[in-house]
This record gives sequence, C-alpha cells and structure tokens, in this order.
Amino acid sequence: MATELDAEGRAAARPLLTDLYQATMALGYWRAGRAGEPAEFELFFRRCPFGGSFALAAGLRDCMRFLRAFHLQDSDVQFLASVLPPDTDPAFFEHLRALDCSGVTVRALPEGSLAFPGVPLLQVSGPLLLVQLLETPLLCLVGYASLVATNAARFRLIAGPDKKLLEFGLRRAQGPDGGLTASTYSYLGGFDSSSNTLAGQLRGVPVAGTLAHSFVTSFSGSEVPPDPMLAPAAGEGPRINLAASVNLWLERVCTHLGLEVQEPHSGERAAFVAYALSFPRAFQGLLDSYSVRRSGLPNFLAVALALGELGYRAVGVRLDSGDLLQQAQEIRGLFRNIAAKFHIPWLESVPIVVSNNIDELELARLAQEGSEVNVIGIGTSVVTCPQQPSLGCVYKLVSVGGHPRMKLTEDPEKQTLPGSKAAFRLLGSDGSPLLDLLQLSEELPPQAGQELKVWPKGAQEPYTIRPAQVEPLLRLFLQQGQLCEPLPSLAESRAFAQQSLSHLSPKNRWLWSPEAYQVALSEKLHTLVDSLSAGDSL
Amino acid sequence: MATELDAEGRAAARPLLTDLYQATMALGYWRAGRAGEPAEFELFFRRCPFGGSFALAAGLRDCMRFLRAFHLQDSDVQFLASVLPPDTDPAFFEHLRALDCSGVTVRALPEGSLAFPGVPLLQVSGPLLLVQLLETPLLCLVGYASLVATNAARFRLIAGPDKKLLEFGLRRAQGPDGGLTASTYSYLGGFDSSSNTLAGQLRGVPVAGTLAHSFVTSFSGSEVPPDPMLAPAAGEGPRINLAASVNLWLERVCTHLGLEVQEPHSGERAAFVAYALSFPRAFQGLLDSYSVRRSGLPNFLAVALALGELGYRAVGVRLDSGDLLQQAQEIRGLFRNIAAKFHIPWLESVPIVVSNNIDELELARLAQEGSEVNVIGIGTSVVTCPQQPSLGCVYKLVSVGGHPRMKLTEDPEKQTLPGSKAAFRLLGSDGSPLLDLLQLSEELPPQAGQELKVWPKGAQEPYTIRPAQVEPLLRLFLQQGQLCEPLPSLAESRAFAQQSLSHLSPKNRWLWSPEAYQVALSEKLHTLVDSLSAGDSL
Repeated sequence: MATELDAEGRAAARPLLTDLYQATMALGYWRAGRAGEPAEFELFFRRCPFGGSFALAAGLRDCMRFLRAFHLQDSDVQFLASVLPPDTDPAFFEHLRALDCSGVTVRALPEGSLAFPGVPLLQVSGPLLLVQLLETPLLCLVGYASLVATNAARFRLIAGPDKKLLEFGLRRAQGPDGGLTASTYSYLGGFDSSSNTLAGQLRGVPVAGTLAHSFVTSFSGSEVPPDPMLAPAAGEGPRINLAASVNLWLERVCTHLGLEVQEPHSGERAAFVAYALSFPRAFQGLLDSYSVRRSGLPNFLAVALALGELGYRAVGVRLDSGDLLQQAQEIRGLFRNIAAKFHIPWLESVPIVVSNNIDELELARLAQEGSEVNVIGIGTSVVTCPQQPSLGCVYKLVSVGGHPRMKLTEDPEKQTLPGSKAAFRLLGSDGSPLLDLLQLSEELPPQAGQELKVWPKGAQEPYTIRPAQVEPLLRLFLQQGQLCEPLPSLAESRAFAQQSLSHLSPKNRWLWSPEAYQVALSEKLHTLVDSLSAGDSL
Repeated sequence: MATELDAEGRAAARPLLTDLYQATMALGYWRAGRAGEPAEFELFFRRCPFGGSFALAAGLRDCMRFLRAFHLQDSDVQFLASVLPPDTDPAFFEHLRALDCSGVTVRALPEGSLAFPGVPLLQVSGPLLLVQLLETPLLCLVGYASLVATNAARFRLIAGPDKKLLEFGLRRAQGPDGGLTASTYSYLGGFDSSSNTLAGQLRGVPVAGTLAHSFVTSFSGSEVPPDPMLAPAAGEGPRINLAASVNLWLERVCTHLGLEVQEPHSGERAAFVAYALSFPRAFQGLLDSYSVRRSGLPNFLAVALALGELGYRAVGVRLDSGDLLQQAQEIRGLFRNIAAKFHIPWLESVPIVVSNNIDELELARLAQEGSEVNVIGIGTSVVTCPQQPSLGCVYKLVSVGGHPRMKLTEDPEKQTLPGSKAAFRLLGSDGSPLLDLLQLSEELPPQAGQELKVWPKGAQEPYTIRPAQVEPLLRLFLQQGQLCEPLPSLAESRAFAQQSLSHLSPKNRWLWSPEAYQVALSEKLHTLVDSLSAGDSL
C-alpha cells in the first residue's frame, strides 16, 4: 500500500522541478555537441550546520525514486519549448523527450551517515546534459532532508536517550510536502514519532496525537453524551456511567486539594470525559485551557481515577504554556501525593508531556537531571531549523570527458576539489572516526595500520597518520540506472544514524563550539588542486 | 493545461496531511454525539513577522482547491483505523468516508490583502468534526504562503519599483513542494520572476535563468562547436563564424584593457560562445568562474561585441561573488568606456545581475541611489525566511452550537477573541488605513463619517474615531461547499498586493521598528470578552 500511495506523494519531484538555467544550459551543451559527454558532479556542503561539527546525510531514497522515474512528459517538453527561443532546433526537444537515467551512476553516503564538509553526499556521473539537469532536484531532495535530520539529531543528543521526542511541525512547514519531508527526516534524525498522519501512511513514521485546546473549549459542560457508559478494561463486569463516576472522584480530589468542587471548569471536564470514552486506554489530559491548578489538574485526576477504577491507566498530561519544567516538577509531586493518598501507585509515573515553542536551550533545561518531563513535543524549531534554515548544499562539476574540472573563483571558499574521487573514513583504535580522506578514484585505498601523508583542507602542511581501521564511505547505489543494493528502511536508517553518532568522539559531538572534524586530501589530490590552481592546462 | 497538471502538483495536500490529534478529536466529537454541531474557527496570526507591522494574506487558492476536493479515500480511512483503538465503532469510519466540504462555508481576506494580528485570514464554519479536521492542512497552506509573500514584499519595498527581483531558492526549500510554494508566493509578494520551472508550468510564474559556473567550467577551450555559424539578427545577410569573430573582438578588447590576449580563460570563452550560439538574443555572461577582470569581463565583451555586429544585444552580466555593488559600479564604468570607444551605445545599459546570499541589508546596499545593479537574484533569504521561518498562524474555535467560545488560558498572549465576527478596515480621508475593527457579526457595520467607539486590542480605554471610509475585509468565498466568486489569477493578486501596500501609511510600512497598525474591538465584542473572561456562563 505504501508504495502505491507513494507515487502520489512524491508527484511534486519531477523533471521540471528544476531551475530554468539547467534547461538553458542543456540547450547550450546540446548546441555545442556535448550533450552525451561523460561528466561527474559531486553534491556536498561547505560548512556544518548550526555551528556543530557534523551533519547527517539524508534524502537518498527520495533521490533514487526521482532518478529511476526520471522522464519528461510531452507537456513538460512543450512548456520548455514555450520558454526557450522559438527558433530552437526541434531535435533538441526530441533529445529531451528521450532522456532517462539509464546512463546515470550514483555513489553516495548511505542514508543516515555522518557527513562532513567537502565530502560528497552524492557523486553523480552520466551524460553531461542530463546530470546537469539533475542538479536542482537533487539539491532540493538532499539539502532539507539532511538539514532537518541533523537538527533532529541535535535535539536527540540534548534530550538524551530516555525522553520521548514528538515532532508536530506540519503546520509550520513550507507547505504540504515540506511538512512530509520534515516529519520523515526528523524521525530519521532521532525523534520517536510525528503528528503528521500522512508521514505515517506514506513513510511508516510512528504517529502520535491526542487533543487540542479547541476540543476542550468546544465543551460547555451542558452536553449530554449519548452513551456515557464504559466497560471495565478487562472486559468483565458491568458497564458504569463514566461521567457520574468522574463527578464522585472530583469531589474527593477537590477536597484533598482544598478546592471548591465548582472551581474546575465543567466544560473541560466534559471534554475529558468525552475523550476518555473514546480512548479509555489512551487518556491524556491537556491541562492549560483554563487554569492548570484550579481546573485542568483536578479534572484530569477525576477522570484518570475514575478510569483507574475500571482498570484503565491514563497515558499522560500535557502542558502547552507557562514554565513547563516548574509545572512538571509540581505536577509530579502532586501525582506522588495523590498516589499515596488514594493508594494508586501507577499515578506516580503518568507521563508528563510538554510543548510550546521549545528550542535547543529550552530542551536542555527540560532534559536536565531530575526533570520530571517525559515527552517533549517540538514543532517550529525542528521543522524550520531557525538557527540555520538551509544547509547550503552545492552540486559541482568535478570531471568532464575524463578530465578533472575545478572552479577557480577569486572567492577561496567557493573553490571546488577537482576529479573523480573516493572517500574514506580513518578510524582510531577505539573505533572513533579520526578524519575523512578524499583521494582520486584511481589511487589505492589507504590501509589500516599503515602510515599515510594527508593534507587537511585549507592547511599549508601535511601530516602523517596511521589509522587503526579504514572505512570506504561512498557506496554504489545506482549503476547505469539500475539500483545496486536495496535501500534500508527508514527505521533502519534511523538506527544507523544513532549508531554512527555514538561513535563520534565527544569533542566532535559537542553541539556548541565543538572541535572541527578534519577532512583531508591525499597527496595526489592535493597536487592536482595545486596544479589546477596555478592555471596548468586541464 | 495548467489545471490538469495542477491535480498532480497539489497531490500532497490531502485529508491525511493533518495532525493525528485532529483524527483522535474527531472520534471524541463523534462519540460525544457532536460531530455535526455547527462550529466556526478563525485562522489568524498573533504577531506580524520579521519585526514589521504588516503581513500579506496568501494561500487562499490552495485552500479552496483543497477544500473542494476534500474526501477521504478508503486507504486513508484504513490507515486511520490502524492507528485508532481497535474497538472503535465502525460507524465512525463510515462517517469519515462520507465527509466532504458541502457543509463548509469560508469567509476570507482576498489573496494579497494586508493582514494584521488577530484579524482572521480565514473564517471556517461547518460541522464541528469536519472543520476541526481541516485545521492542520489550512494552517499548512496559509502559514508559509503568507510568510513568504510578506518576506518577498519586504524585499520589494527595499528594492524599490525599478530593480528586477528574481527568486531562485528552490534548492534551499523544504523539499519539492516547499520550493513550489516559495516560488509562487514570492511572485505574489512582489518578485518579478523565478528560476523554478515547475512554478512556471503549474502556476504561471514568469521563469528566468541563464547559466551556472558548471557550464563555464565544463569547457576547456579545446572543444570544437559542430556549427559555429550564426545568422544576423535581422535574418538577412550571410552567416558568420561566431567563434572567429569573438577572437577578433577579444584582441581589440584586450588591447583596450591592457591585458594579454592569453589571459582570459579560453574555456570560459568557449562556454560563452556556446551559450551565445543557443541564445543569441538572450546572451548573458557569468563573470566570476575565474577572474572577473582578467577573464570574465574581456570574454563577455568579446562575445557581446561580436553578437552586436550581427545585430544582437547581450541581455546581461552576472556576478555571484565578491563585493557586488563595487564591482557593478566598476563594470558600468567600463561598459561606458567601451561603449564610447567602440561607438556601441547600447553596451552602456547592459543589465548587471547580482546574486550571492543577498539578505535585506545587502539588498538595501545594492538598491541604494546611484547603484548600477539592475537585477538581483535572491534564493535562501527569500525562501527560508531566516529572520523568522514561520508565521505562527493559529486556528481557533470561536463558536459552537451558536455560542461564542474563548480560550481562557493563564497566558494572556494565547487568549482568543470569541464569537462569529465581522472585520472592517477604517480609512482616513487620504485613503490610508487607520485601523482594523473586529465586531460581532450581528452588529451593524460602521458607517463612513460617523463617530465610533473602539477598544484597541490590549488597551484599557476606548477611544472614538470617525472614519472617512469603511471597507469590509472578509469576503464569502465558499458557501456550503460552493465557490461564490471566481478567484483572481496569481498575477492579479500580485497587483492587488502591491496596490494595498502602496496605501499603507509610511509609518506602518517601515520595515524596521515601524509603528504598530491598530486592531480594535467594537464595544460589544469588548464586552463579550470581558464577560467571558470573568467566567460568566457561555
């Protein structure tokens, strides 16, 4: 089912989802007789996002889907004809019509890999005209996916392994598919679930959700549920009137809390009862529609304890305003107190769910030792990545016709590394990554235990290193248009990402002011860069 | 054609593109016997984005498309059944299967309207269960569209009316549809064109694009164009060898500039020639693949002057690095100098196009008086809205069963305004808006020339105002599922937005530290808020 629906879900990623200049350049290549010349591009980023020292590579599945389906429809070609010069040779459009990715080969970092500046996430080779056309869609599919996965991984690192992280930023995303992408890759990066139902349906992301303030405020308390009766959790025994039982519990709770029984809002309580009748096994109270202490909490307790009598256990309370940490501490204390008073031990550990514009710093506060917060819902700040809302990936030509190519701009930051390359991760004896090495693809791979001279990017001097282990980084995923190995599932990639992160040494894993992870060039690649920079003939 | 293709383009916006809690609440309403109760929600924002004092309302077309097509497929209902309690009454799923928007009515600010905090962009009324389900998709469709349109409008205000603004942020967007939305609504907000070809095909946005560095660096200079011959622009006269003519011009240009003829990169020149052969009427040179002065400029001039001999005029040069303003001034000076030297007056005014991470401040610098920059390409900072990457729209219940509803949280910022409302813009005698007035829908509209007591939001005291004109703000677009008036085209909405902005008084139009535009409540609405806040029965 997921596969079939997916065809619809990814409809927006299609050949014309590209910058017009890819099409004008296509015509230029074609007119110059170079459409089929073999070329290779690399997709990479120049700086790690969010001031950190790592990123997670993501979006490969979407790229593979896009490439394997790549084909221009007649209407696409007609549209291009309408915006290109009217006297363009019709043979060019015939060429476009016949394009597919059967001549395209892609090596890539596996989904969820650690990625570092300058190391290709994708190497795309094939006919010059075609691989140029692929630039924008591939950047669009990889850039945000990797950014949001990295952002989510940072939240996971801050939260630690035990807090549950729920993504619910769909409404803050860049339109429908922005939301779908966000939910998918937040999960890959380490979130536990998403509110986005479509991400559940199409991508298999676990979904979660309970109720909003509008549900609570829609009840005035005068509503009469058509059927207020609820059977015990075990299925045996008589059904009882939940609303009536809640009212009895409310009196006890209010007495214990020193509240008048009229204080808790009757509409809020009616909403809780209605929700509990639908979800007796998954009752959660949203506490802050009116007053948390004087209304939300007593109403929640009355419903939870009435449900408890029938053998159901409430699954949580949610706070969406105010000082979330302080309220969580107070509520946990109250739960303990009530649990003792009424001999209901499970109440002590009812999960406390919080939300409300939580960013990295607030998350760090909520996740600190001793915090009673259990589940954290994050929307805007995971989906929009406000610290840095784009990764800034680039897609650069590194070889054409078998010759290395390099952009020699006057802006050193924008220079590129020429030639078809291989990439290796050199590991220390404890298995933690020491540096990533880029070398020309014709060079022999570095050997574990053997000394090696490397040139850190931007450094003036080489140094020698003896890796304990060597891992090749780029895997062949698409060869001449054919998928070479099955892509892992989203959940597998998520596990791989967490495993990769756990090996990263702490100084590189720091979220603020980390030590930069080194990327270095082989002697031979370094020499090629020097020679091309000096203007030697290509 | 556009309509047919659109069906595919908007595939991602469908009923399950919603937070799961909308579905759990739906079950709650249904179980409480309230699914069909008449309800009204308002969609609005609480604060203007980017520290400004206005926003543009956008996304209405997408909402209307979504609502009119709203229907849950069998597979959607099956997915919901898989995540809801297994003992859920099957009649609930039958109810979902039968849902459509035939009972939904929408009033809205017309696309491209000025919007202010608390004034509804949409008022959505219909059966409670259904209009609750619509929350997330409507927020998703309106929030980012309005945000990016407002962002684009700010760029337009900074640039002034004469500079051309090109959006090319597709690769920095939140996936495919994020890019499509960005391009569409940047245009609505005041950009002139987009690089996004799909936005051209599906939304009619004017598209633009020429060539990238990869095109330039892909040429070494040893390539032989299969056909280097070009006919004169007028069509009459012999075809000439463009490459040969360019070489002649290069010598003259280099001599004039005091450069060796070997200095300009031959690959860059070959790329320019190849591009010019394809686009003789639209030749643009990208100058900074190697060195602007020693290579890009002389190569551009040689090709432009060779084309000029044939009656073609180059359409621009593009700079993508370095100090863009300073280079533009120098290049314009050089163009003037060469134009005089070679008696080619049109060269003086060849447009100078700049790009490279341009934000509001850099745009202000590039657009200042005397700047020789003509076209500005902006990607990341228009598409990702880095100053504030989400608008933070909310969708709040204001009435149910004919009774006003209000969220009375302890966080005053999160309180809502109850009741079904009408909204009016009160204008001064010069036609500029003075304030937006919210009142209950049953009240008589304010009258031009008549004194009126209003309560500015958050103020303790009312004041009186005598508007010279009164404009109703919310128009009926969907009545019981039927579209009531044709939606304007994107270009019409764009013109409307510019016109609306032009009427806004300068102190409200300021981009930094503007005076807040006032939104006020009628006496009657103010009284209702007071009475509900005091806990009077609903």
